[in-house]
Amino acid sequence: MLGNFSYCNPTKLYFGEGSLKYLKGELAKYGKNVVLVYGGGSIKKNGIYDAVIEILKECGKDVAEIAGVMPNPTLEKLYEGMEIARAHKADFLLAVGGGSVCDYTKALAVSVHCDEDPWEKYYLRFDEPTCEVVPLGCVLTMVGTGSEMNAGAVITNREQKLKIGHVFADESVMPRFSVLDPTYTLTLPHYQMVAGIYDIFNHICEQYFSGTDDNTSDYLAEGLMRSLIHSSRIANKDMQNYEARSNIMWTATWALNTLIACGKDTDWEVHMLGQAVGALTDATHGMTLAAVSLPYYRHIMPYGLEKFVRFAKNVWDVNGEGKTDEEIANEGLAKMEAWMKELGLVMNITELGANEGMLDELVKATLVMEGGYKVLSKEEMREIFRESL
Amino acid sequence: MLGNFSYCNPTKLYFGEGSLKYLKGELAKYGKNVVLVYGGGSIKKNGIYDAVIEILKECGKDVAEIAGVMPNPTLEKLYEGMEIARAHKADFLLAVGGGSVCDYTKALAVSVHCDEDPWEKYYLRFDEPTCEVVPLGCVLTMVGTGSEMNAGAVITNREQKLKIGHVFADESVMPRFSVLDPTYTLTLPHYQMVAGIYDIFNHICEQYFSGTDDNTSDYLAEGLMRSLIHSSRIANKDMQNYEARSNIMWTATWALNTLIACGKDTDWEVHMLGQAVGALTDATHGMTLAAVSLPYYRHIMPYGLEKFVRFAKNVWDVNGEGKTDEEIANEGLAKMEAWMKELGLVMNITELGANEGMLDELVKATLVMEGGYKVLSKEEMREIFRESL
Repeated sequence: MLGNFSYCNPTKLYFGEGSLKYLKGELAKYGKNVVLVYGGGSIKKNGIYDAVIEILKECGKDVAEIAGVMPNPTLEKLYEGMEIARAHKADFLLAVGGGSVCDYTKALAVSVHCDEDPWEKYYLRFDEPTCEVVPLGCVLTMVGTGSEMNAGAVITNREQKLKIGHVFADESVMPRFSVLDPTYTLTLPHYQMVAGIYDIFNHICEQYFSGTDDNTSDYLAEGLMRSLIHSSRIANKDMQNYEARSNIMWTATWALNTLIACGKDTDWEVHMLGQAVGALTDATHGMTLAAVSLPYYRHIMPYGLEKFVRFAKNVWDVNGEGKTDEEIANEGLAKMEAWMKELGLVMNITELGANEGMLDELVKATLVMEGGYKVLSKEEMREIFRESL
Repeated sequence: MLGNFSYCNPTKLYFGEGSLKYLKGELAKYGKNVVLVYGGGSIKKNGIYDAVIEILKECGKDVAEIAGVMPNPTLEKLYEGMEIARAHKADFLLAVGGGSVCDYTKALAVSVHCDEDPWEKYYLRFDEPTCEVVPLGCVLTMVGTGSEMNAGAVITNREQKLKIGHVFADESVMPRFSVLDPTYTLTLPHYQMVAGIYDIFNHICEQYFSGTDDNTSDYLAEGLMRSLIHSSRIANKDMQNYEARSNIMWTATWALNTLIACGKDTDWEVHMLGQAVGALTDATHGMTLAAVSLPYYRHIMPYGLEKFVRFAKNVWDVNGEGKTDEEIANEGLAKMEAWMKELGLVMNITELGANEGMLDELVKATLVMEGGYKVLSKEEMREIFRESL
């Protein structure tokens, strides 16, 4: 059954090489005081920073900067940004970077005018904003999170060792526009590219492996997975292949902009397991997901066998003739594993800096989701982390 | 190659049984003077009219009505509506009906404040609106056209025997919101249901059968087609199956809201052929498409063989082993034909009121599109219409 839902995604996307030219027209819609948000400074090396600054100047904007947003943006960094944005009386926030920068900017957008502590309000109580939300836009330079067209924002509290994502229901938290130029992603190292690819794939899995209903969303999810597997193999061999990289970029956007979750249950337990690893090791998000995925899926497979059989047949072209459902499902997961190894993904959390001594802390840092085929007990989580070592 | 494009689709969708309850909150955002637009009066029999009027009253709206919008809305009817909306100083247009009512309301939205003739401006010159566009919303009661989430509006000029669609680039022509309650579609006659299903399927085909690029959009299209074929077979046997009908409704929306056309060429020649039949016979839109489709696709198949092979394998699960590409492609079209017959679609234009004597007029009324695998000559069109008799 396609359950009741509402859908609204007003982000305007400018896609393709040279799309930055549309930034000027978009910025003209907002006030003079812009806060430019970016990460570790790679945009200064590849020329994107200069191009954006030039456009901001042409638009006569008064610009403040928040630099150094880290891969797992922290609450401390959010507090720091709030001060800058408040002092600058920000009319608009412009994120230039990947998912972390974009997530951070959304967290900032709901916090600038918030008179409560944002961690308490948005990440512990999961409240919606009750204050004015500062409008934001995004120039995307890395692919994977889908942050460019959704209202999600993950923040890490280092003190509490918690990495929590809040997907806001309020559409005003979504970027007003996002510039998606695939050529910006061509200079990424292979490690970052494949981590992003697995992040995309897992976003789709989290929404696909849930529910037993007959649902259009699952057919769209299969289409996205097939496209991603196809293009990732091309990009893995030829990172400069614009066609493959542009398809990966577009797939990422639709993998996590709420469409394929419409009317159905979703899981997100792999993200909870991975985020616990991320909170403790600061490892790259996509790799943390890759490292825990197969132990998790093999663990829940018996509880959602029908969907795993469908996954094997429709996504991995497994021929089911003369095989039991278990055999078909296992063959699908084996094909997925082979593809992950082909891409060079990190297949265990040891390589990411975790060890047996961290198991208790990892379990403690993992939120339990209830939408998947099996609600994990603490014991099961511990077992999955152990198998991921 | 995923070509450059922009994408923005801000329509808010309320999906599921009982979604009309959200109408009140949406109407509160607009002014007092509402023009209610509907068709032949079926909404008065099934209670939807009363429910909508009740909500309009609760909102304190001043309501004028445009009733009797016909299946192929005419330019005369548009002129009539313009007078009503102007006299009422319309702040908002509310379409309650199927694609024709919604299309008509969009044509009205761009015409109320237009000081030129809308046929000349929007349908012969394909200009964008330069005047204020009256905001509109939609309560959908029939499924197929996707009009509830796009900026397209087809109008028929009976005098000139032309049925022309304009997909506006201006997002303000899209409905601000659409209420999609699948239970509203359960009372439709079988003929209308299957005509709508084929309209959806053909929308996807028109976007799929074009270009030779490797494109995520085509993977999404395949997912939508697989979902539609699956659900249509259930609905065909059990029209009251909410699960199947809701999936069909959702597929219809995504089949024509610009997503699966992003970054690729599209065809639309079947729609041109079908609209010519519609302009001359006033036959149901989806049936006109069904009646000309197979002669058209069999005609262009050699020019886009690779895509037709992919269609056969990925949409119809044709096993290609030991077969030539032509055999695989033909087997795919044969499976499509069998499915169309299973649904009870009209497979020739004779049954729709066309005859051999109309061939010249049909060819004259057909626009030539240039995005498909073969740009049709007048001779080829004539041949396709003849084979469709």
